[in-house]
Amino acid sequence: MRNIKVVVEYDGTDYFGFQYQPKVPTIQAELEKVLARILKEKVVVYGSGRTDAGVHAEGQVINIRTTGTIPVDRLAVAMNTLLPVSISALRAEEVDESFHARYSAVSRLYRYDILNRDAKSALQGRYSWHVRHPLDVDAMRMSAQMLLGVHDFSSFAAADRDDGSPVRDLMQIDVRRCGEHVLVTMRANAFLRSMVRVIVGTLVEIGLGLRPPSQMADILRAADRKVAGKTAPPHGLCLVEVEY
Amino acid sequence: MRNIKVVVEYDGTDYFGFQYQPKVPTIQAELEKVLARILKEKVVVYGSGRTDAGVHAEGQVINIRTTGTIPVDRLAVAMNTLLPVSISALRAEEVDESFHARYSAVSRLYRYDILNRDAKSALQGRYSWHVRHPLDVDAMRMSAQMLLGVHDFSSFAAADRDDGSPVRDLMQIDVRRCGEHVLVTMRANAFLRSMVRVIVGTLVEIGLGLRPPSQMADILRAADRKVAGKTAPPHGLCLVEVEY
Repeated sequence: MRNIKVVVEYDGTDYFGFQYQPKVPTIQAELEKVLARILKEKVVVYGSGRTDAGVHAEGQVINIRTTGTIPVDRLAVAMNTLLPVSISALRAEEVDESFHARYSAVSRLYRYDILNRDAKSALQGRYSWHVRHPLDVDAMRMSAQMLLGVHDFSSFAAADRDDGSPVRDLMQIDVRRCGEHVLVTMRANAFLRSMVRVIVGTLVEIGLGLRPPSQMADILRAADRKVAGKTAPPHGLCLVEVEY
Repeated sequence: MRNIKVVVEYDGTDYFGFQYQPKVPTIQAELEKVLARILKEKVVVYGSGRTDAGVHAEGQVINIRTTGTIPVDRLAVAMNTLLPVSISALRAEEVDESFHARYSAVSRLYRYDILNRDAKSALQGRYSWHVRHPLDVDAMRMSAQMLLGVHDFSSFAAADRDDGSPVRDLMQIDVRRCGEHVLVTMRANAFLRSMVRVIVGTLVEIGLGLRPPSQMADILRAADRKVAGKTAPPHGLCLVEVEY
């Protein structure tokens, strides 16, 4: 049995998230359908993690186990001839038997893109959250730093979460202005469901002056979803990279 | 009669170009429909130039003449509440009577985005032309320089052109690599129909080694569309800015 790792890019706009669900389009279902055609057998796709409906990826990682004989350096090209324009396979490589896209991952890097200007954007609206009023990036950065490290992140997880331990290690969090954009990047060993989006939603409320930056530490300590800010919309979020 | 200038951004993917045509969606038709609702009178939109079907704009400029009384600082917001997500009004200002979006323009700046990497992109495919094989950017730059200045650009104009004089002043042309992208930017007093796309198509043939860089001067001199390269696809092209 060969074990193959593939790095995948997708535009999540028209999908109900990464994970397979009956009767609706998902990234996993598209990948499994195309890989079954290429490899001429049923294929199960393991992803590094689920991305929510509408979330994009530049560097999602999957692995598949197969008896198929296609040379690995032909696989990405073969996938791209069959995949819809909204999904692309960037590269494939053979990995040893123990590799698992989810369980072998050391960290995930996400980027959230906020378009911070007066007018909405016809060209960037698909990949960024439009926030009209000027954001105080220094206040956002200061409060973001309070989240660094190993914590119970229950305050920032979807209320319907059922993932076992709510403890995660947030290794890096940056907030920076880049022209008309404010970019928030986060690296953690793993993320709770909606965690990046709830953190960003809370940071934006701080950036708008609706909450003082110091409140972030209290929100974290409360371990209660109700005290954090609103969940930022999915279309500004992108899974950039998974580290192994 | 007030004369109002509006800067407009659009995603050209789903439109048959800027200019009004019966029975198909165009940018001009959308703008005229929305402005008529806001200003409560028939409105004619004058654009700085036509963009072809599928071409985008970050900074198209239009002007309208109206007896409507809406304060000019409310106009862009009012337009954006009615426009589809693929079109946005960035800013509006009152200008003197003599201003005309097309005839007053001193120059137009276009950018062509080539994604130069092996795999197609799910996220960037909408706004860039995917060229798989590595491009020789130095060769492209060298040949591009041969086009600078005032010339008969007939070799680089759509064969069905009917615009009067084929002479244009190409003031600036840059080719640069930016990560996985090769960006070609051009500023001219005005462009012939498809001129940017035929120049880019020819530059790409040079960048792929299919033509020597020195051939560009011969192509220009020939003043014959048949000797230049293929027309690059519209979706990589964006009207960045119009100068007055």
